[in-house]
Amino acid sequence: MPQSPIRKLVPYAEAAKKKGRIVYHLNIGQPDIETPDTSRNAIKNNALKVVAYSHSAGNETYRRKLAEYYRRFDIHVDYSDILITTGGSEAIMFALLSCLNPGQEVIISEPFYANYNGFAIQAGVTVKPITAKIENGFGLPSMSEFEKLITPKTGAILICNPNNPTGYMYSRDELNALRDIIKKRDLYLFADEVYKEFCYDGREFVSVMHLEDIAENVVVLDSISKRYSACGARIGSMVSKNKTVIGTALKFAQARLSPPSYGQIVGESAIDTPDSYFDDVLVEYTKRRNLVVSTLNKIDGVVCPTPGGAFYVAARLPIDDADKFCRWLLEEFEYENQTVMLAPMTGFYSTPGLGKDEIRLGYVLNVDALAKAMTCLEKALAIYPGRTMQTVVSDKAR
Amino acid sequence: MPQSPIRKLVPYAEAAKKKGRIVYHLNIGQPDIETPDTSRNAIKNNALKVVAYSHSAGNETYRRKLAEYYRRFDIHVDYSDILITTGGSEAIMFALLSCLNPGQEVIISEPFYANYNGFAIQAGVTVKPITAKIENGFGLPSMSEFEKLITPKTGAILICNPNNPTGYMYSRDELNALRDIIKKRDLYLFADEVYKEFCYDGREFVSVMHLEDIAENVVVLDSISKRYSACGARIGSMVSKNKTVIGTALKFAQARLSPPSYGQIVGESAIDTPDSYFDDVLVEYTKRRNLVVSTLNKIDGVVCPTPGGAFYVAARLPIDDADKFCRWLLEEFEYENQTVMLAPMTGFYSTPGLGKDEIRLGYVLNVDALAKAMTCLEKALAIYPGRTMQTVVSDKAR
Repeated sequence: MPQSPIRKLVPYAEAAKKKGRIVYHLNIGQPDIETPDTSRNAIKNNALKVVAYSHSAGNETYRRKLAEYYRRFDIHVDYSDILITTGGSEAIMFALLSCLNPGQEVIISEPFYANYNGFAIQAGVTVKPITAKIENGFGLPSMSEFEKLITPKTGAILICNPNNPTGYMYSRDELNALRDIIKKRDLYLFADEVYKEFCYDGREFVSVMHLEDIAENVVVLDSISKRYSACGARIGSMVSKNKTVIGTALKFAQARLSPPSYGQIVGESAIDTPDSYFDDVLVEYTKRRNLVVSTLNKIDGVVCPTPGGAFYVAARLPIDDADKFCRWLLEEFEYENQTVMLAPMTGFYSTPGLGKDEIRLGYVLNVDALAKAMTCLEKALAIYPGRTMQTVVSDKAR
Repeated sequence: MPQSPIRKLVPYAEAAKKKGRIVYHLNIGQPDIETPDTSRNAIKNNALKVVAYSHSAGNETYRRKLAEYYRRFDIHVDYSDILITTGGSEAIMFALLSCLNPGQEVIISEPFYANYNGFAIQAGVTVKPITAKIENGFGLPSMSEFEKLITPKTGAILICNPNNPTGYMYSRDELNALRDIIKKRDLYLFADEVYKEFCYDGREFVSVMHLEDIAENVVVLDSISKRYSACGARIGSMVSKNKTVIGTALKFAQARLSPPSYGQIVGESAIDTPDSYFDDVLVEYTKRRNLVVSTLNKIDGVVCPTPGGAFYVAARLPIDDADKFCRWLLEEFEYENQTVMLAPMTGFYSTPGLGKDEIRLGYVLNVDALAKAMTCLEKALAIYPGRTMQTVVSDKAR
């Protein structure tokens, strides 16, 4: 597997810090928000004497409570439709392994979460990218584009909603169109819905579980990592009404024995997190998003669609090469002894050459730090030697 | 993947319990011993506010401390030679993925830990079994047998020492012979050494890391699950001096982001577990092993080699079919409203037809419960309808 463009930057970030420079890390998906007290206290008060294997599908009490949690989103599943996984990562892996054979293809709208590639390689599955364009605010490509990519080898379509890396939220219309293709071609629809708590401006979250008549085709990939800022707990879930899929995934789950016991305590107790936690988080993230989007769009030559969800923005910058620019920020640039670390979008595209003038920025720092980081970015773009002319885009994306 | 013979028994065990029957679970590798206080207290006193991703290779503090731990076994590695994994399971998976290409073969001495099969399937690697015989106490098959199996497709040999499911401990001579083949054929040697703390009668544990001149070929697969009775922490490690192997495995580790944070706290603090913990555990397990082995060998027609390590015995019983017998124990047999759940050895052999008169028994219950379980087993063998004549074995195995 090739090394990701973000990973390649790590040594430069370390070198910058060694020089005493403040580096604002906007390159990652690790929120700075505290894990809810409810969960941290559950861990501190746990009564495990023997830290034993749990059921391979996860503790039944947790699965039942998770079914209750999904009901709040109008997602009606039985606990037996849920498999607790070691992070969302394992849910992705199990879905690929359980639904597809080696040699089959999965269509994914690019830019996409780069690690999908690693899991596809492990499962022997080929990723067929379909490009979402910044000119359309990264909306779902048209169904005719999907149809063009479908071959007898196609086994599934994978979406991430709200989207990482673009923050785009799919509308009900887009999802219904997708549903029609899934039904017509009898494909699996995998949906990574780990950011569903992060929807802004009153936007409605539509789960693939809400789509009519394709219950047997749908597999939801979920995780508590972002929802409760509990990335290190390594707890996710795979949800499907398709008993054969869950049954097959259970065999892979049995091979790895069980998901982490302490993580399951975090997950189960987190379901009792008071609504006020999310209210505060949403207020905070909305402030951050607004700051980032408005600052970026004021900079000459920058295009940044306003994302409806998650905690990322994907922006086009007036630069020659995002990998070079991100490295230059760390290696050569400083403004009042500060700089910023961004993720080049090249790593999120599967089609070579795409994303060369795009970066992803996670608004995972508080507003003060973010404001300083945005100032750095503005100053940097003003003097970057590889700066290009102003980008021309349609009005639609603004 | 086919369902394992042990899994198939689970519904029968549940049905027996529903009837109010006491079932002694000797079918599993889940010790009843308490996880050390040191670790449980470290979890209770943890100061994590944001349960964040750790480094994909595991926390550096933990890896450094683990290197220190290995030094106690005369295993000299740098922290950078260690990758923290999500259980020993992931260490096996990473070793297969990092060292072998799909289509390559790994030779494993059977009977072996059944989940190796599942990981090999996921990695696209073919398992070539080489049979260890109960007549030889399950010692390592001769090197000429190994030579016969080696083809241009062979990429590695995998051993488990002390062995699950047989409890056999490989001698220095056996390991040196293996070393010669590894060196001559330039193969990888994977060694699952998760039971290395469980060695009886003063036997010397020899790690593959002690073998001369094959440092680049050796990968150790380790776990804290058995060592500290912390199966649910899901923490293991992959250790190799081969920088390319560790570098490749790190890429797979990066795809799944990080090992569990709380589990790493368990693992790191466990290294300070006082020696007295292991002294007590060894005394306890030795008592249990002696009870089981001596009772079994007194039963007419039973052959049970005395294992040098781990906490399993593999025995030949005077029965027609181990799967049937184990099911019969749960479905039809009872003695004073008690029965026993065993693991049929059929699931530990890759060669069809082998293990039909063998069972694995984990001595994971206290001596009183074990004694009752052994009485059940003796009574059961006396009346089992599929009982065969007494088995004839050489003296060597006794």
